[in-house]
Amino acid sequence: MGITVGIVGCGSITRFRHAPEYLTNPHVDEIVFFDRNRHRAESLVKEFGGRIAESFKELIQDPAIDVISDCSSNEVHHIHTTQALMNGKHVLCEKPLAVSTEHAKTILEAQKKSGKKLMVDHNQRFTKVHQKARKIIQSGEYGDVLTFKTTFGHGGPESWSVTKSNATWFFKKERSHSGVAGDLGIHKIDLVHYLINDEIEEVKSFAGALDKVDENNQPIEVCDNVVCVFKTKKGRLGNGSFSWTYYGEEDNSTTIYLQKGIVKIYHDLEDQIIIEQPGGEKAKYELEPIQTNDHQSNTGVIDAFIDWVVHDIDPPVKGEDAYSSLKVVERILEN
Amino acid sequence: MGITVGIVGCGSITRFRHAPEYLTNPHVDEIVFFDRNRHRAESLVKEFGGRIAESFKELIQDPAIDVISDCSSNEVHHIHTTQALMNGKHVLCEKPLAVSTEHAKTILEAQKKSGKKLMVDHNQRFTKVHQKARKIIQSGEYGDVLTFKTTFGHGGPESWSVTKSNATWFFKKERSHSGVAGDLGIHKIDLVHYLINDEIEEVKSFAGALDKVDENNQPIEVCDNVVCVFKTKKGRLGNGSFSWTYYGEEDNSTTIYLQKGIVKIYHDLEDQIIIEQPGGEKAKYELEPIQTNDHQSNTGVIDAFIDWVVHDIDPPVKGEDAYSSLKVVERILEN
Amino acid sequence: MGITVGIVGCGSITRFRHAPEYLTNPHVDEIVFFDRNRHRAESLVKEFGGRIAESFKELIQDPAIDVISDCSSNEVHHIHTTQALMNGKHVLCEKPLAVSTEHAKTILEAQKKSGKKLMVDHNQRFTKVHQKARKIIQSGEYGDVLTFKTTFGHGGPESWSVTKSNATWFFKKERSHSGVAGDLGIHKIDLVHYLINDEIEEVKSFAGALDKVDENNQPIEVCDNVVCVFKTKKGRLGNGSFSWTYYGEEDNSTTIYLQKGIVKIYHDLEDQIIIEQPGGEKAKYELEPIQTNDHQSNTGVIDAFIDWVVHDIDPPVKGEDAYSSLKVVERILEN
Amino acid sequence: MGITVGIVGCGSITRFRHAPEYLTNPHVDEIVFFDRNRHRAESLVKEFGGRIAESFKELIQDPAIDVISDCSSNEVHHIHTTQALMNGKHVLCEKPLAVSTEHAKTILEAQKKSGKKLMVDHNQRFTKVHQKARKIIQSGEYGDVLTFKTTFGHGGPESWSVTKSNATWFFKKERSHSGVAGDLGIHKIDLVHYLINDEIEEVKSFAGALDKVDENNQPIEVCDNVVCVFKTKKGRLGNGSFSWTYYGEEDNSTTIYLQKGIVKIYHDLEDQIIIEQPGGEKAKYELEPIQTNDHQSNTGVIDAFIDWVVHDIDPPVKGEDAYSSLKVVERILEN
Amino acid sequence: MGITVGIVGCGSITRFRHAPEYLTNPHVDEIVFFDRNRHRAESLVKEFGGRIAESFKELIQDPAIDVISDCSSNEVHHIHTTQALMNGKHVLCEKPLAVSTEHAKTILEAQKKSGKKLMVDHNQRFTKVHQKARKIIQSGEYGDVLTFKTTFGHGGPESWSVTKSNATWFFKKERSHSGVAGDLGIHKIDLVHYLINDEIEEVKSFAGALDKVDENNQPIEVCDNVVCVFKTKKGRLGNGSFSWTYYGEEDNSTTIYLQKGIVKIYHDLEDQIIIEQPGGEKAKYELEPIQTNDHQSNTGVIDAFIDWVVHDIDPPVKGEDAYSSLKVVERILEN
Amino acid sequence: MGITVGIVGCGSITRFRHAPEYLTNPHVDEIVFFDRNRHRAESLVKEFGGRIAESFKELIQDPAIDVISDCSSNEVHHIHTTQALMNGKHVLCEKPLAVSTEHAKTILEAQKKSGKKLMVDHNQRFTKVHQKARKIIQSGEYGDVLTFKTTFGHGGPESWSVTKSNATWFFKKERSHSGVAGDLGIHKIDLVHYLINDEIEEVKSFAGALDKVDENNQPIEVCDNVVCVFKTKKGRLGNGSFSWTYYGEEDNSTTIYLQKGIVKIYHDLEDQIIIEQPGGEKAKYELEPIQTNDHQSNTGVIDAFIDWVVHDIDPPVKGEDAYSSLKVVERILEN
Repeated sequence: MGITVGIVGCGSITRFRHAPEYLTNPHVDEIVFFDRNRHRAESLVKEFGGRIAESFKELIQDPAIDVISDCSSNEVHHIHTTQALMNGKHVLCEKPLAVSTEHAKTILEAQKKSGKKLMVDHNQRFTKVHQKARKIIQSGEYGDVLTFKTTFGHGGPESWSVTKSNATWFFKKERSHSGVAGDLGIHKIDLVHYLINDEIEEVKSFAGALDKVDENNQPIEVCDNVVCVFKTKKGRLGNGSFSWTYYGEEDNSTTIYLQKGIVKIYHDLEDQIIIEQPGGEKAKYELEPIQTNDHQSNTGVIDAFIDWVVHDIDPPVKGEDAYSSLKVVERILEN
Repeated sequence: MGITVGIVGCGSITRFRHAPEYLTNPHVDEIVFFDRNRHRAESLVKEFGGRIAESFKELIQDPAIDVISDCSSNEVHHIHTTQALMNGKHVLCEKPLAVSTEHAKTILEAQKKSGKKLMVDHNQRFTKVHQKARKIIQSGEYGDVLTFKTTFGHGGPESWSVTKSNATWFFKKERSHSGVAGDLGIHKIDLVHYLINDEIEEVKSFAGALDKVDENNQPIEVCDNVVCVFKTKKGRLGNGSFSWTYYGEEDNSTTIYLQKGIVKIYHDLEDQIIIEQPGGEKAKYELEPIQTNDHQSNTGVIDAFIDWVVHDIDPPVKGEDAYSSLKVVERILEN
Repeated sequence: MGITVGIVGCGSITRFRHAPEYLTNPHVDEIVFFDRNRHRAESLVKEFGGRIAESFKELIQDPAIDVISDCSSNEVHHIHTTQALMNGKHVLCEKPLAVSTEHAKTILEAQKKSGKKLMVDHNQRFTKVHQKARKIIQSGEYGDVLTFKTTFGHGGPESWSVTKSNATWFFKKERSHSGVAGDLGIHKIDLVHYLINDEIEEVKSFAGALDKVDENNQPIEVCDNVVCVFKTKKGRLGNGSFSWTYYGEEDNSTTIYLQKGIVKIYHDLEDQIIIEQPGGEKAKYELEPIQTNDHQSNTGVIDAFIDWVVHDIDPPVKGEDAYSSLKVVERILEN
Repeated sequence: MGITVGIVGCGSITRFRHAPEYLTNPHVDEIVFFDRNRHRAESLVKEFGGRIAESFKELIQDPAIDVISDCSSNEVHHIHTTQALMNGKHVLCEKPLAVSTEHAKTILEAQKKSGKKLMVDHNQRFTKVHQKARKIIQSGEYGDVLTFKTTFGHGGPESWSVTKSNATWFFKKERSHSGVAGDLGIHKIDLVHYLINDEIEEVKSFAGALDKVDENNQPIEVCDNVVCVFKTKKGRLGNGSFSWTYYGEEDNSTTIYLQKGIVKIYHDLEDQIIIEQPGGEKAKYELEPIQTNDHQSNTGVIDAFIDWVVHDIDPPVKGEDAYSSLKVVERILEN
Repeated sequence: MGITVGIVGCGSITRFRHAPEYLTNPHVDEIVFFDRNRHRAESLVKEFGGRIAESFKELIQDPAIDVISDCSSNEVHHIHTTQALMNGKHVLCEKPLAVSTEHAKTILEAQKKSGKKLMVDHNQRFTKVHQKARKIIQSGEYGDVLTFKTTFGHGGPESWSVTKSNATWFFKKERSHSGVAGDLGIHKIDLVHYLINDEIEEVKSFAGALDKVDENNQPIEVCDNVVCVFKTKKGRLGNGSFSWTYYGEEDNSTTIYLQKGIVKIYHDLEDQIIIEQPGGEKAKYELEPIQTNDHQSNTGVIDAFIDWVVHDIDPPVKGEDAYSSLKVVERILEN
Repeated sequence: MGITVGIVGCGSITRFRHAPEYLTNPHVDEIVFFDRNRHRAESLVKEFGGRIAESFKELIQDPAIDVISDCSSNEVHHIHTTQALMNGKHVLCEKPLAVSTEHAKTILEAQKKSGKKLMVDHNQRFTKVHQKARKIIQSGEYGDVLTFKTTFGHGGPESWSVTKSNATWFFKKERSHSGVAGDLGIHKIDLVHYLINDEIEEVKSFAGALDKVDENNQPIEVCDNVVCVFKTKKGRLGNGSFSWTYYGEEDNSTTIYLQKGIVKIYHDLEDQIIIEQPGGEKAKYELEPIQTNDHQSNTGVIDAFIDWVVHDIDPPVKGEDAYSSLKVVERILEN
């Protein structure tokens, strides 16, 4: 007999990613949707089948349900995910785990107490390119990691958010909390932890609202740019730049400098990983087709979560990973 | 009647750059060489003609001499350059101006008092590519500068220094002072000041000796890596990475992010400047031949100095510029 | 309150360009269609909304109508456009303005007398590439224009005209008048005027029907090739080649030779403008995606016309411009 | 027994091309040099061996000499070549055959009367690329030639002429006669005749001194730019542009448009011939290495001349060919 | 009056290739379908029009039918094609002509006896690239053929066969007979015969089931790899490799080595034919667009067959050609 | 104290490879040369220092000498190498080990009896590219090897042998023995053994003298082309082609087909190893600079031999390896 999934929150992320990927997973039998706005849940049932829960409580107390996807607003993850865990459900929580480490700690404690599985949707760990890069770096072939650089920047969320205007919630303090640091920075901090198998311990940074304005043409309340330097537990040094004001091509690149080579990730469109060595030697990996037409393709996140639940195969990212990235973001903003 | 040049210090920089470039400048008539080691001066006279001064004092008191190139050790610039200025000579001082801002201040005061011209050999300002980049950025066509990134890294000075071993002076505290920060960082700090016409005011950084060892296989006394974040007077934010442990291709790249585009400098071998704009538009500048066979080509530094002296044409870098870069390096190391 | 547009002539150009672009312009409220063949007008109303005028007179006397697009046959532009202007309408006339300069003069006089605005659809002035090229040439950065070369050629109109056969009207003297000179040449003559801000004054040429045959396998009545040399008012010299017998890739290239560089336009698929300078320096502009899937994209012609009408912003091409290009075509054929 | 060669005129063309290529030809035994300036002849004897003639008369009356290279000034070709022919020598005359068709006629008559062989150094016929292009065009595979375009332009002869200044003889009416038309145009006119096996009959053109100035900063006396249109005996139409003011890369390209394809010659550095056909089919010929280091390589001109003399193998260019190109240049200047 | 076509066998090959290509051929009026499974025939009538024959006998005895396409199973070609020929029909038989040379001989005898036309669908002869390659090789420009290499390999038929599993008929002895040799090898053997106008006379080979397993995870009954060497009647030597275990890009390349050059076919995506010559000269042919979106495009096979029938134009492949390729496959398997 | 080397045979291979590489090896002190033609030995002493042995006996009995390079004619390797081993010297024998397996057996027995080290100069094992390829294949990452293809071909040895004519010893039966099989084939057979760690057990082939002629224009006595198929001990199948008649670019490529990918070696100038995987994934290794100017660079062969002698580090190729390749060549010729 298969798995029944409960989803709390029926917005875009549920519609485009969670629901369709659960449907194509061979272990999943049925989805139960809940949203405070009943119409949104109904609309998903029409599209994906399954049924509706009348309240969040009903959802997490439904004995048929084995796992919960928490796709609710970031501010209430610590409520929903915590209760789901405490009701004996495994939880896949959308990123970020919480809007503060304090909230996150509540969740992690619930996880420990309940003994249930908690995964967070840090999807950069799942691309074929980043998984290959990690394998290369961890193989030891190029020696130890010394330093690193990571960047995530594009022209800003206002053009593709639902509102498609400067009134977007991304620009508001009370919803966005950490601006570009939480929107983009957390992805790459988590990725660095993953790639070099280490943890950022010290952070120094500058942040600012340099260019974006809100619907009243006033500088936005959160930072649109963050530049940071990092020191890890093992003593590696690194740079990070996270920006909503890269008015050219999106930059999602990372570079890892090792004792015998340099691993460049997403610097080149065709060869997504390039490894340079002294003397001009290079290894190049072409792992993704240049023109991806179908951005809706399976991310692997849901499958990894279900594999964890069913086969007890460790997933690439757990609750503790999300917590340590969140801690770094918090330090960036304290600077 | 032409100019007579005095040079103090007859090492490699004199032999490969100052002497031959003075010789090809149409305004220069003769060179007078001085070195504490008389043999080195004699050897240059054999190669380039000219004559020898028996003491530094003789050199700077020679009424025939109009200008001095200070190619002595970094630790004594503040003595030689200062005295040359005070004896009424214009001075071209090798980079860095001094090993501390305190010494540099002495020099600048002498310059002011004497009213003589003082230029410093920050040669990155002279490449055709950086000059074009500055013109593009300053044109206003792409709006204001918001953020920037700059890098200078290679596999370390030990392979090409005279000693060609880990016993190199670059790795010694008493000679090198600031390690990679002073060797590579100062170049790019000065370049950023030049490109964006602004000055770095605040610096945060991490530095360390992560990989290099000395002749006794001990970690070196100065830093081999520096990562920093910057804030300028006008509020721009930036990243810098300076490294002797990039064990792949040398990286001398800089990126300037503006309100309407991104200016990428030395990211691509063929197109040394690439400007990206929203919507995929690009402008690309191919200003240097890919395969430079002749690294001895004229840098333009000497010509700019002589043009200043003879025609009073402002050079791209003066003593004050060198001072403000030095100040930033000092702050990096205080972090 | 918005603008009401009248269109005379309901053929392909109206259907694929004028009607849809008026519809997406925010200032336009309604379109009124007229065609001697009532069915064609009806079919457009079905597709784009709006209403039908029963006669041309009704159209131009309709007080609700502010502007007229003249998409009628080339031979009757001088009647329709003239009457529209004299009835107080601004007119956007399809290219060419008229089939002779005599007719064109009539139109221009009407324009002057009426004081109304007259624009002609010389669409090469509107591409991003040609607009950027003009800006570069006019900037003075590369000195004065000395000479130029321009070409427009493809495999002939018979393959894509409605009839898709050698019976096409393009090959008939009474409809086409000037053959390839009027079909392709006029575009590039107008473009040269625009790019170098000058006017062709003297023309010498050879023209001939070298290869095309009509439906009876007889050489066509108009020229399928024209080669010409030009001299402008300011003394620049140039070449032009216009051809329906380029049996390979279409060639729409132009080259402008200046005192300090060469501006090559549409020579390269990726970099639509390439500027060469002495010593091998190049600047390259990539302004259009290589694979344009959507040839129906907005040309900007209608928007520029409406901007002229509403905001009095000068458009890139007015009636006088069209007239001077027409004059050159006439001289080509007199040779 | 081998051939003895006489050379009149001992300038650069003799030194860099005629003398060394005669030396490596297996049929040539000895060279006899003559120059009004005896020192120049002596210097070549030192370099290449052989002997000196004391007068031009002695040279052409020397019974040991079989063939003469006329490397004297263009203005006296009609004297030297004529007399050499009349004294029973075969002659290889430097390009152009003469400075006027009148002079050229004298030479051709002497050739006919004497029955001796007369070849002219139109070296563009000898490149592997042009020979292949001719073979392709003449094969009939692509149908008849319809139109053509040819260009020869660079930044001007003043930079590489011996004087390396604007005082160069290329800019003087009395030496240069036809300016860029005779310097560059004649090469490509001759090439077109060769490639399409046809002859230009009618010419229209504009010519001017648009940019070059002489040593007194006055516009030069001869044209620095010529643009022309051509009509051949067989009715093909073409364009030509010949320029000393292409301030970018040298352009030596030619395009031949045929009924089933377009042959592009020297448009691309790597593929020196590209043939386009309808439907996107292409054939590309890579016949010369991209980076030719050795510009002194054998041109094949001397070998072809000697093969004609010894084996009676027709050369690619004879006296009549040179005459018909000269006629076209004269018509260009009459326009 | 046009041609009526009968088709026996209504599977995929009929649906995707024979039926649609007959429909677009201007000489074909009607198609009559027969399949033992009546539903399959009905379904094609619905899609393509035409009518149904109730039995194979009815089909081949129908006096209205001029030509038959034999799209039945390979094992019964010798029955259907033979009977069709003997009933006075021209036949286009799907590839392979038969599963043994014995059966094939029966067919060829029927063809001779009946005097009717027999063509076999060896479609590699029909690509523009192979036709051009044959023309080049046969032109004699590059001298005689000395040796050759041919390959056809991909990841195996199990992924794209109807069953999409290892249970595919391709892996079964009784259906597939010759495994990869008959599936892929026969195509390239036939192609070599065509390209070099010669016939393979001697064969040596190794074959094996190296990697593929059936639905029970047992090695398959037929070979998944064949490597062979060939000697032709005219004494040329060659290699062949045919594989279902190329787990990368499909390889369909052929190389022909001649006395003056090497013809490389389908080695490069862009230039499908590359001819190398001594000294680095190359000719490159770009005959197919790189990204073929529409694999359903007309193969030319049907048109060639109908042209043979109607206009008596010899097709590129006849029954005897198919027979000699089949003979080679049989010898491969005897090794 | 260092090593003294004796070299028998003072031809080109000694001069260009053995002598200079011994000189730069830090462990080698002196070279003793012997050649039946004393002048050749003297000439090498002049160039490289060292001394001369008066007889082969003197050379191998010299107690100062530790190792011998056997650079004598192939026909006498079994004499020289055997005696050197039996006199207690380690031997580096030029390739091929012998002209027959019978002779080779003699040598191997001497090696065993003497207990001395015997290495053979199969230099393809030493390129960085082949060493990396072996590592990749042996890593197991791509599964087991299934099949392979290897080629070695160029335009023939006559152009670069000393005689530079068709009289070359390569074409003579008594010197060359096995023609192209021994000249080129043995290299790639040895390489395949090395790359896939397996041994060819069965061979089938065709060989012939298809194009080369001797100095009398008669077909040569040895084969100029060999095509073969192989079966290894572990059951892998492969193709080989070895040719002196590839009249285009040299081909030294090898392809290894594994269960999860294809390893292509020396197919691409820039990326010397390309690994293709299903789904379009690729890994590419750029290990050698494209333009190698200096073909005299150290091959690593001598250093590996000395490392074996001094440090007992196993070399990539020993006597037994050479023997098993020789066996395969012999079987090729028996076919």
